[in-house]
Amino acid sequence: MARGDQHGALRTRLIDAAERTIAEQGLAALKARDLAREAGCAVGTIYNVFEHLDELVLCVGARTLAMLEAALGAVRSPGRHGSVEEAVAVLVRLALAYLAFAAAHTVRWRALFEHRMSEARPLPEWFVEQQHGLFAQAERPLVTLLPELDRDARQILARTLFSAVHGIVALGLEEKLVSLPLPELRNQLAATVRAITSGRAELRSIDSAGGRADLRQG
Amino acid sequence: MARGDQHGALRTRLIDAAERTIAEQGLAALKARDLAREAGCAVGTIYNVFEHLDELVLCVGARTLAMLEAALGAVRSPGRHGSVEEAVAVLVRLALAYLAFAAAHTVRWRALFEHRMSEARPLPEWFVEQQHGLFAQAERPLVTLLPELDRDARQILARTLFSAVHGIVALGLEEKLVSLPLPELRNQLAATVRAITSGRAELRSIDSAGGRADLRQG
Repeated sequence: MARGDQHGALRTRLIDAAERTIAEQGLAALKARDLAREAGCAVGTIYNVFEHLDELVLCVGARTLAMLEAALGAVRSPGRHGSVEEAVAVLVRLALAYLAFAAAHTVRWRALFEHRMSEARPLPEWFVEQQHGLFAQAERPLVTLLPELDRDARQILARTLFSAVHGIVALGLEEKLVSLPLPELRNQLAATVRAITSGRAELRSIDSAGGRADLRQG
Repeated sequence: MARGDQHGALRTRLIDAAERTIAEQGLAALKARDLAREAGCAVGTIYNVFEHLDELVLCVGARTLAMLEAALGAVRSPGRHGSVEEAVAVLVRLALAYLAFAAAHTVRWRALFEHRMSEARPLPEWFVEQQHGLFAQAERPLVTLLPELDRDARQILARTLFSAVHGIVALGLEEKLVSLPLPELRNQLAATVRAITSGRAELRSIDSAGGRADLRQG
């Protein structure tokens, strides 16, 4: 095997090992020593293959994001000339698909949001790009729902909707704060998304909101 | 000093030390050894005073919850016969007060949501009770907004609204996912709360949702 291939194979083994740990036990259980043992390399070698452990965690996060995107992508988007009702139904289905994913993959899904870069390192551009794909799925129905919003306003609104859904799912699945049985959580989520989207006059006001020029990932 | 007083004084010193660490550096920085040094006791003594480190973390969490309750409590509730507009305005102000608190005390506020009990220990009843006070602040305006909801449905809706607001605030303050400048975040939050509350017909449907009998912390 050429040197580059060996490097690539070890990289994959390390990501696989980290993924198993993160998916089963969460971020806190990740230790360089265990990873090295599982992947069959010296601890120091990890840092030849990855710049730092954060990079390895992000590679696992990228796999989780890809799974999540596939789960949301299975929700059919409304056509360009779909009805408002259809657009609302799609947003509700996206929210329920998000809940279903989080309930099925709770540990690795939590890790996605718990991870913070150490030493104030910036998040790499490729990861930011991939995250953006998540919000983009909510943007299409918003074209039908609020055709008068410009692209920037629609992107921001898609993120806000995603964040509201995320909050209901995250605290709803959290034993500690707002534990609800799953069918009830589904009801709450669907009713909230329908309520938000029925308040279109209020959401339109977002268009005229200031501060968008400062938007980082626009 | 009597033995009980000494015990109480050490307990307070340990909570103070843990609070400083959690508020400044977050949950991950908390180490029993450092706490013992700061409080002037042996490491083992911590476990004479607290059942486990989780209990100590919850004591700090209780202080954070009390601060948060005070911040939200400063928002004046509408009177029993207030108008719908007044009730909506109160909910928007509560959401903005929550954002302001999270922005001002980000590290300790995050710790509140990141902490999980180890070894699947249940959360103590006193902590669950205190959390309940948080949601209760959103319940009063909901009486005006949706007088036909029964108490259970209103409690659940208050938690759902809180969760949606929490999601927008948490991801909005998160560099990684949805970084927005604070004034824009305030706009998004206010518009979303107004949109949700304008969808009263949708929120009413929560009343007939099943599964409430299973509600744990009702």
